[in-house]
Amino acid sequence: MAYNFASGPATLPPDVLKAARDAIADCRGTGLSILELPFTGTAFAGILAEAERDLRDLLGLSGDWRVLFLQGGASAQFALVPMNLLGGRRDADYVETGHWSRRAMAEAAKWCRVRTAARGNGRGVPPPEQWSLSADAAYCHVTTNETADGVQFHRLPDTGAVPLAADMSADLLTRPLKVSRFGLIYASAQKNLGVAGLTLVLVREDLLGRAHPGTPAVFDYGRQAAAQGKVNTPPTFAVLVAGLMLRWLKAGGGLPAAAERNARKAAALYAAIDGSGIYRCPVEPSARSLVNVRFHLPDEADEAAFLAEAEAAGLLNLKGHPAVGGVRATLCNAMPEAGVDALIAFMADFERRRG
Amino acid sequence: MAYNFASGPATLPPDVLKAARDAIADCRGTGLSILELPFTGTAFAGILAEAERDLRDLLGLSGDWRVLFLQGGASAQFALVPMNLLGGRRDADYVETGHWSRRAMAEAAKWCRVRTAARGNGRGVPPPEQWSLSADAAYCHVTTNETADGVQFHRLPDTGAVPLAADMSADLLTRPLKVSRFGLIYASAQKNLGVAGLTLVLVREDLLGRAHPGTPAVFDYGRQAAAQGKVNTPPTFAVLVAGLMLRWLKAGGGLPAAAERNARKAAALYAAIDGSGIYRCPVEPSARSLVNVRFHLPDEADEAAFLAEAEAAGLLNLKGHPAVGGVRATLCNAMPEAGVDALIAFMADFERRRG
Repeated sequence: MAYNFASGPATLPPDVLKAARDAIADCRGTGLSILELPFTGTAFAGILAEAERDLRDLLGLSGDWRVLFLQGGASAQFALVPMNLLGGRRDADYVETGHWSRRAMAEAAKWCRVRTAARGNGRGVPPPEQWSLSADAAYCHVTTNETADGVQFHRLPDTGAVPLAADMSADLLTRPLKVSRFGLIYASAQKNLGVAGLTLVLVREDLLGRAHPGTPAVFDYGRQAAAQGKVNTPPTFAVLVAGLMLRWLKAGGGLPAAAERNARKAAALYAAIDGSGIYRCPVEPSARSLVNVRFHLPDEADEAAFLAEAEAAGLLNLKGHPAVGGVRATLCNAMPEAGVDALIAFMADFERRRG
Repeated sequence: MAYNFASGPATLPPDVLKAARDAIADCRGTGLSILELPFTGTAFAGILAEAERDLRDLLGLSGDWRVLFLQGGASAQFALVPMNLLGGRRDADYVETGHWSRRAMAEAAKWCRVRTAARGNGRGVPPPEQWSLSADAAYCHVTTNETADGVQFHRLPDTGAVPLAADMSADLLTRPLKVSRFGLIYASAQKNLGVAGLTLVLVREDLLGRAHPGTPAVFDYGRQAAAQGKVNTPPTFAVLVAGLMLRWLKAGGGLPAAAERNARKAAALYAAIDGSGIYRCPVEPSARSLVNVRFHLPDEADEAAFLAEAEAAGLLNLKGHPAVGGVRATLCNAMPEAGVDALIAFMADFERRRG
């Protein structure tokens, strides 16, 4: 039995993989493959509507939120967020916490004056009380979980009249969320929603209609919301798989149950790290990510040996992000507790053998 | 046996569907699903390299062309083409031939002054000799096949120093192509390359590096070319299916053989229309599309009856584009000749029964 700890594309539940395969043979009794199904027909309309309904149920999204299934990845949103939200303002606040928030800031700087409202120290996240927010900012952007650095916000501020915009690619749907804190939430799908090539954008209705005139129509939140996401052909297969992931999540007890499972997985792994003699997590306990558990061994030779032996033992894709090195175990919703148990057992065995 | 005449997502070969399903269970012996496979690993690198190699072989692409597997659809390229190619110029020439070229022009107008170099009459395409090209244009844009209107260019001009940029979403890879005529070619994948959510961009090397500073990095041709398309996570499953389609096309004899099959299919269907008493194709013979065969019946009631009975007979998704109405049969590479034969037989039967 192998376990895939990649940060994305991440592991998927066997039932979802089976249902995706079935839909390639025959999608919901249409006689057509999901890959051939017209996006304007009733069958796909049903798939899209069910995915949106399940998402709204899981997050408790109120009617003033619009749900968009777009393309381009979260990285495209890094530039599309200012293009859509500036509305003539010049400034946006950004909270810098690691690799991905820096990528978001670099792209945003093409379109606005990027103010650093707070900066993490690489081992934690700046507490909301220390953010220096500007009343003039069009929005305040935060990366709720840094997949490379292994830090995560466990508390977020009320930014009042300034809309809070969040890249939640890694942790959306991993725990209950106070959606009312946000104006915009986006996430690429390949972590907890299935397939690379789909980007989920949740946007509060009052933020629509502000797009820069140069915004491509397919990436204009207002245009897409008005057209039910069908300004152009949606990534139909990826939408189907997102729907399967949402249904699987609901069947498993929704976000409260997922959060319990995810907290148990992360707690067990961090305890194994902290209780060991050779593994070390550089992240402060208060900011440790429940999704991306990052740790190091005494030196690079140890890390290389660890990664090679883990791979041979069926514990796959544990290599840390190139920006920070080391080891990274990604514990998305679909990573079973048995996978974490197997990793912990391997870590103990590796430490024992290393002597 | 049902046949799917949708214009996109279009019908796919059974062998490709089977291979796509197999790759969801286990991708090339990795033990992982293609949906879970890291895009930075060797397995996906092989998938990407093979797809590019097969595409280069089929089109005879020389080394000065770059191949990009992007997201966003051809509709995103409508704005991204001027963002990438203007390079400080103000004007671009556009050839207006129908619904999709008008969409391209509307998006381009957000970024440049759109000159109409030629305009079709709705029943044909403007012959290259009549295009009024501007030496100042950053590029000249053409939609080689209009899927809604059913018109197609069968001859294209040499635009000299002005790069010819083409939306070939419908007809790329349906026949041999004199690539040297072009500076940029783009196509969404859901017609002849598989899955919605992938956009193929072929760009001549000397046109890189001109992008507007506001261009999102993931849509900057130069940035993506320098990073082998991995500025962000590519749509990995869609790339796999594109590779399967390319391999299937090569195994079937490449573009010359595909062109022969496609010409035979279209000729048979147009002959059935022209030889009938009730079907009528409004497009001039010289500009008829070999990919999207458009025809009308005497009145809308006839068309509605035709479409309903065809659907019941397993001839699916024949409804014309809303912009033009009527009937449309899309004959992508994967539509077998037996499908066209079945449609022709049904048309004769419908005409006989109608009396």
